[in-house]
Amino acid sequence: MIALDASTTRPLEGGASFSLSNRLFRVFWGVAWFVLARYTPPPLHGWRRLVLRAFGAKVGRGARVYGSVSIWMPHHLELGENALIGPGVRLYNQGHIRIGAWTVVSQRAHICASSHDIADPHFQLLLRPVAIGDRCWIAAEAFIGPGVTMGDRTVLAARGALFGKAEADSVYTGNPAHFLKTRQMRDPA
Amino acid sequence: MIALDASTTRPLEGGASFSLSNRLFRVFWGVAWFVLARYTPPPLHGWRRLVLRAFGAKVGRGARVYGSVSIWMPHHLELGENALIGPGVRLYNQGHIRIGAWTVVSQRAHICASSHDIADPHFQLLLRPVAIGDRCWIAAEAFIGPGVTMGDRTVLAARGALFGKAEADSVYTGNPAHFLKTRQMRDPA
Amino acid sequence: MIALDASTTRPLEGGASFSLSNRLFRVFWGVAWFVLARYTPPPLHGWRRLVLRAFGAKVGRGARVYGSVSIWMPHHLELGENALIGPGVRLYNQGHIRIGAWTVVSQRAHICASSHDIADPHFQLLLRPVAIGDRCWIAAEAFIGPGVTMGDRTVLAARGALFGKAEADSVYTGNPAHFLKTRQMRDPA
Repeated sequence: MIALDASTTRPLEGGASFSLSNRLFRVFWGVAWFVLARYTPPPLHGWRRLVLRAFGAKVGRGARVYGSVSIWMPHHLELGENALIGPGVRLYNQGHIRIGAWTVVSQRAHICASSHDIADPHFQLLLRPVAIGDRCWIAAEAFIGPGVTMGDRTVLAARGALFGKAEADSVYTGNPAHFLKTRQMRDPA
Repeated sequence: MIALDASTTRPLEGGASFSLSNRLFRVFWGVAWFVLARYTPPPLHGWRRLVLRAFGAKVGRGARVYGSVSIWMPHHLELGENALIGPGVRLYNQGHIRIGAWTVVSQRAHICASSHDIADPHFQLLLRPVAIGDRCWIAAEAFIGPGVTMGDRTVLAARGALFGKAEADSVYTGNPAHFLKTRQMRDPA
Repeated sequence: MIALDASTTRPLEGGASFSLSNRLFRVFWGVAWFVLARYTPPPLHGWRRLVLRAFGAKVGRGARVYGSVSIWMPHHLELGENALIGPGVRLYNQGHIRIGAWTVVSQRAHICASSHDIADPHFQLLLRPVAIGDRCWIAAEAFIGPGVTMGDRTVLAARGALFGKAEADSVYTGNPAHFLKTRQMRDPA
């Protein structure tokens, strides 16, 4: 449904990268989220899951999404069970974003699943899906760039900016983010 | 008053990290700041000092806090004389934040005094106080992480992200922030 | 018109760095932009060009500025033909900012054309103009610091923070930003 007609896209000249029906749907979605969810009290996670699913997002059982989260296109979002998307997070999912079960995305982090072809004089938009594993932590105000994949249980520190593949069971930090150490977890009590 | 009962905290499962009275107080505080301060004209610093003190913050003489500043918990805030907290700054003081006299925190900087135990399968919240010295400058959109201490007269450059101890009379930059040079000050004219 | 009287500026003591007429003009400008442009629909770029020019900005033919862009002082802004200033961008132009033709500044990037003299006990404000070339790309949430000049066709990656001179035909990334590679562009089809 959300096809990107690359051959006719001229973003530099104001040409739309998405179809008219896509753009109209997004206006509708933006108004709907604003009215139905933006100012709902934090504990109403069940209600917001319902809104997200009604608009096409795949949302696992118990996932929690705050009202101040910004989602470009609900169809392009998949949240695992009990994933937590904190206040002010931006899911810029022009391309698809998948976030695993029990993963926490802290306040004002930004996940961006598109870029531009910088070798193309027309600056063509590129959709590059992002996939985050289970039990990860994307800490406050971190940034995940287009095409990133992150293994299970991995941490990206606050303000970290990750542009490549992140291995499982690791801690990354910095801009650009680099491997800091292995994440060792204790056994559950 | 703001005890954190670590042994029962299960943030991943939606368990509250703070007591009910803490949470009710913060709803009250948020509404109060919004009504009394959020849209007050910039020069009304005296009035905003009064509001902050009434809600439990320690605010030195002449300290200036803009209406767009976000403060998690006024009890956990201590500002020295003539400290300046600029527009859009976030003081995420789940743990205590102390900012010294004549220190400037520029627009949209973020000071964060808590983290999570990433070795704990329950992802326990950790309170880690932050202490900034006198005559420091936290420049625009910089980030100060949990547990940081910063010596007097030290500068963190714009967008810098500091996670460790910063010595006095120094300039730090980058993410993660590193020592750039000594700060030499001229004698006052 | 916007002279900065350096010898009498005491920002640490709450002294204004700009004249009363400057400050009154900016209150007027802020209200005008809010009323006339802030919530206009995205496609009304022609109307917003008109508003910007009426308030003293130099705006090239076809330049597009979103309503959520924040501009400190329109007199200090010069946009080349078909420049694109995306949603939520901050042009903190206490000093002058020039952005070249066909250059794209993506969402929530921040260009800051002033600093403080950290060797001065009075913390004097410093105006340091910024000049960005033609056909550059300042990607999402990047930061351009005071005094920066950037050659034509250069890219600053998402979240990059650039503090020095950037050569033409290059890609920079990181905080602080460093040279990553040469930008090779294909011939237009």
